[in-house]
Order: sequence, then C-alpha cells, then structure tokens
Amino acid sequence: MSAKIVALSGGIGGAKLALGLSHVVAPDDLLIVANTGDDFEHLGLSISPDLDTLTYVLAGLDDRERGWGRANESWAFMDALGALGGETWFALGDRDLALHVERTRRLKAGETLSQVTATLSARLGVKPAIVPMSDDPVRTRLKTARGWLDFQDYFVRLHCEPAVEEIFFAGAASARPHPRLIAALHAPDLRAVVICPSNPLISIEPILAVPGIRTALAAVKAPVVAVSPIVGGAALKGPTAKMFAELGVTPSAEAVFRRYEDLIDILVVDETEAPLPTDLRPRTRAAQTIMRTLEDRVALARAVLAAADGPGSRI
Amino acid sequence: MSAKIVALSGGIGGAKLALGLSHVVAPDDLLIVANTGDDFEHLGLSISPDLDTLTYVLAGLDDRERGWGRANESWAFMDALGALGGETWFALGDRDLALHVERTRRLKAGETLSQVTATLSARLGVKPAIVPMSDDPVRTRLKTARGWLDFQDYFVRLHCEPAVEEIFFAGAASARPHPRLIAALHAPDLRAVVICPSNPLISIEPILAVPGIRTALAAVKAPVVAVSPIVGGAALKGPTAKMFAELGVTPSAEAVFRRYEDLIDILVVDETEAPLPTDLRPRTRAAQTIMRTLEDRVALARAVLAAADGPGSRI
Repeated sequence: MSAKIVALSGGIGGAKLALGLSHVVAPDDLLIVANTGDDFEHLGLSISPDLDTLTYVLAGLDDRERGWGRANESWAFMDALGALGGETWFALGDRDLALHVERTRRLKAGETLSQVTATLSARLGVKPAIVPMSDDPVRTRLKTARGWLDFQDYFVRLHCEPAVEEIFFAGAASARPHPRLIAALHAPDLRAVVICPSNPLISIEPILAVPGIRTALAAVKAPVVAVSPIVGGAALKGPTAKMFAELGVTPSAEAVFRRYEDLIDILVVDETEAPLPTDLRPRTRAAQTIMRTLEDRVALARAVLAAADGPGSRI
Repeated sequence: MSAKIVALSGGIGGAKLALGLSHVVAPDDLLIVANTGDDFEHLGLSISPDLDTLTYVLAGLDDRERGWGRANESWAFMDALGALGGETWFALGDRDLALHVERTRRLKAGETLSQVTATLSARLGVKPAIVPMSDDPVRTRLKTARGWLDFQDYFVRLHCEPAVEEIFFAGAASARPHPRLIAALHAPDLRAVVICPSNPLISIEPILAVPGIRTALAAVKAPVVAVSPIVGGAALKGPTAKMFAELGVTPSAEAVFRRYEDLIDILVVDETEAPLPTDLRPRTRAAQTIMRTLEDRVALARAVLAAADGPGSRI
C-alpha cells in the first residue's frame, strides 16, 4: 500500500499547492478536500467556487491571471443577462456556466456533491480525487458592520469591504464529514496531511468545523503540515490579512501558527519571513511559498513533503 | 378606443407575421398570444421556445438563417457542456441561455410566465404585448411508433422522425386561458383575430385546447383570419405536412381550412395555390404568404388585415 497525502484547500492559493502535489504524488495517493463553505445558490444554480477552482487548476483549464474561472473564457451569457436586467455581480463565464448547470442538474437528480464532483472533474481530466469536506450544505456567514452577510455577498458583491466581526459556519454542526477524508485520516498508510496556503478563517476552518474532522486530524499519527498564506504581514490574494486584523489579530505567519497550533506539527513559512518566536521555531520550516510558476508549485509541494517526511516532523 | 388585433402564433412562421403586424398596427393594439405547448424543462431551466422566438423576432434579435435563437450567437456553453458529458441535443446559445436562466429564476421567485415574458421582452425592446396562452403548464405529447413522446423529444431530439399517431395536450384541460386573451376576444373594439401561419396541429391547437379559448373565439363578432402554413402541399418549415399525412389527411391549404372550419371566417392561402373547392372559395383570399424579407412580412400583415376589414369577412 502506498502512502497517502490528504490536502485541505480553499480556492486559488490552496489549489496551486494541490497542483504541485499532484505532480509529485501518484494520483491515487492524493486526496484533495475542498472547503464548501463558499458554496451558494445563484441564478438557480448550485455553485461551489473552491471545488471549481480546484477542478479547473488540476485540469489545467484555469485562468492564471484572474485566479478563478476558466482560461479563454467568453462572457456572452453575462452580457445578455445584464441586458435582461438580471444579476451580474457574480461573474459566470460561458464555459464555466456549463459546470454549474450540469452540477445543478445532477444534484437535482439526486446525486451527491461528491458524486457530481468526481464525475465532472474526471470528465475534465483531473486524476487525483477532489472531494467536498461534506456532502451536506455548510454556508459561511459573516457578521459585519453591515449585519450578517452570506459569504458571496461579502466576498464578491461587497468586495470584502465590510469589517468582519464574527464568522459562522451555518449547517456545519449537523454536517457529516466526507467519509473518504475520515477514512484517509484513520488509515495506517497516511503519509501527511497538508493544510494548503488558504485563508485559515474562511477556507480551512469551515472544514475543521464539520464534526469529526478536527478530532480525527488531532489524532492522526502522520505529520500535519500547514503552509502560511500570510507573507510579510499580507496575503497574496484575498482578505486573509484584513480579516485577521479586523478580528483583533496582527496578521502574520505567527498568527496563522497560533490559529492552527493544536492541530499542526509544522508550519511552512515563506523564506522571506522574519523568524517566528523561539517556542515556534522548531516547528517551522522555510520555503518559497509564493507560487508564480508551475515549477514554484512543484517545488513548494516537494518542500512540504520534505518537511513532513523529515526529522522532527512529529512533535 | 382603437381597434385591437389578436394574433395566435407558434414559432418562426407565426412570428414572421407577428412582426409584420407589429409594423402596421400600433403596439398597444396588438396582442400576440403564444403557444406554450412546446415549453419544457431542460437542464433545470424553464424553456418556452415559441415565446422566445416571438420575443427575439419582435426585438430584431433573431437569427434569420436558423429560425430560432439569437443572431450573432456563440456556443461556448454548449461546447463546455458537451465536454462534461451533459445533454447537448437541445442547442442553447450563450446569449439565449441568459433568457432561460433569468426566466427560470423569476418563475421560481413566484412570478407568472406572463409577468416574466412582459418584463424580459420589454427589456429587449419589444413593444407589443406577447402573452402565453396560459400561465398554467400545458405540454404537448405525441403518440408515435416509438411510444408517447414529450414534444421536444420528438421535435428536436428525434428530428420529428417518428410517425405521429395522436397528439395530446397534457394539462390543457385544467389550464386557465390568459385573461388578456379572453378580455380582448370579448372587447367591443376587437378588429380581427389572426391565426398565424403556424402548424395547426401542434402550434395553434394547443392554444385552442385551453378551456374557454375556442368558445370565446367562436363567439367573436370580429373576423377571424387564418393564414395557411401549407403551400403546394408542403410546409416551409417544420413537420406540418408530414404530420397531416401521418394523421391520414393530405396536407394542403384545404386541409388547414377544414381543421379551422368552425372557427375562421377567412383563410389566406398562398397566391401560388390551386383554387380550393368551390364551397371554400368565398372564404379564401390569396396573398404571398412566403415571407423572405421584412417587406414580405409587412405585406402579408397588410393583406391579412385587408381580408379582415374587407367585404365578406364575416360569414
């Protein structure tokens, strides 16, 4: 039996590392678990942004500039929808739309989100398994200066502008963790769990909020290695740093570490970071975490696995 | 009060005449009533082909070559859907898709099909009112050599190939006629009812199958003028002639007349047609019914109105 890697991921930052991992781990040995707290229903369609980003990135179909959606995309649908007075704040490309329409159709026909994801990602040529953290709906909601907001309202419609006071994962308490995740965490051949450089607050913690996942993670014998999405006090993409600050925490690699402290063995921080406090140093590893090219993605994947496989990876 | 025209129409053949009428009748004086027996749910979307064709034609957005959908259309969605293994037998252009998505969203939000049609056709610049024959669902089904088929299965997926033995308008018996149609038929200022050159069997008769419409039509004081969609024993488009033959009736202008006999005052037949039987001749008018250009559409509209307004238009 070969050793297995479990990767927990949100959108583009996590997906880049997941792609890197897919180059250095056999497809059957990689289980990518996606946050579905960003999922929502829009225009009658079931949209799963993180699953979609992972699917497109792993299929090589993603738009590298935007960080979401498909490359070579066209927007005729969106233009026509605007002319009809429809809602256009959430951009859906013509090709991307097919994924949402087909997923929605299959969900309504009774398939689980897992089944739909497996079928459609396979059709697009994705080899490793991408699974939602749960087949039950979990919806991230944010208490802000403008009241409680649905995630995409906050994230896309309001461009993350309202200050975040509190984050709630609606539905998480009664959601069932994906059985493949729990099985992988319990399996004797688990090599490592990788927490991808996604936003801890809204990409990884929704996964951890699903009952059973945090406990199973805490109990794994294999090393748990996270990659900090914060470099030099800022996030490469998205509101990670801003949200940390709004919640009263100075955004830093250390803050990421403290957030994961009881779960991880090692935090991989960017090589440009100032040293972390002495007590954390034995559990940090430095690497180039900014992934501009495919080579960067692969190199970070190798660094993460080296950290997991190396000495001192289990505290 | 100005005199009103009610036009009953199916898809492209009827829509061409409706466009002609819209050029010679004030927008407020024209009520276009669409067959909704072709409507269906596909890919989770509520699709109303005849309403859509009428909307696109009246808005000047229609594709003149195909006879359905929008001009300057692109097919990125359809290509992507095919790559995902989705159903591609019913072609939905990227721009056209916006209409179905927005209609579906509005219907689910509780709007009636009439309200949706009014809002969206107005957004596209359509001036005359286009209304569905009913806001209640009616679904044309066909008994064929291959069993009972839903309309679009027969019409699009199977290219009208199976021989038709029987036609049934599911839901018609409990459908309520559109109140604007009934009001217009009862109004003292009704100038004429025009039955457009659509397939009598599957475009006009679904309308007539909605309780109250046939009775109201039979009672109108204003002339009822139909235009034969059959010229020289064939239909310009669609399966009209083939279906007549399969149902044991030689396809001809006469057959159209017999089908409508108890409802219409006048049948406009193509100028190239051989004379109809003597008993029908006083109730026929000849005109160029083949509408290649906008001028043809306007000329036929004028001929139809002249037939309605002229002597001998009420039998």
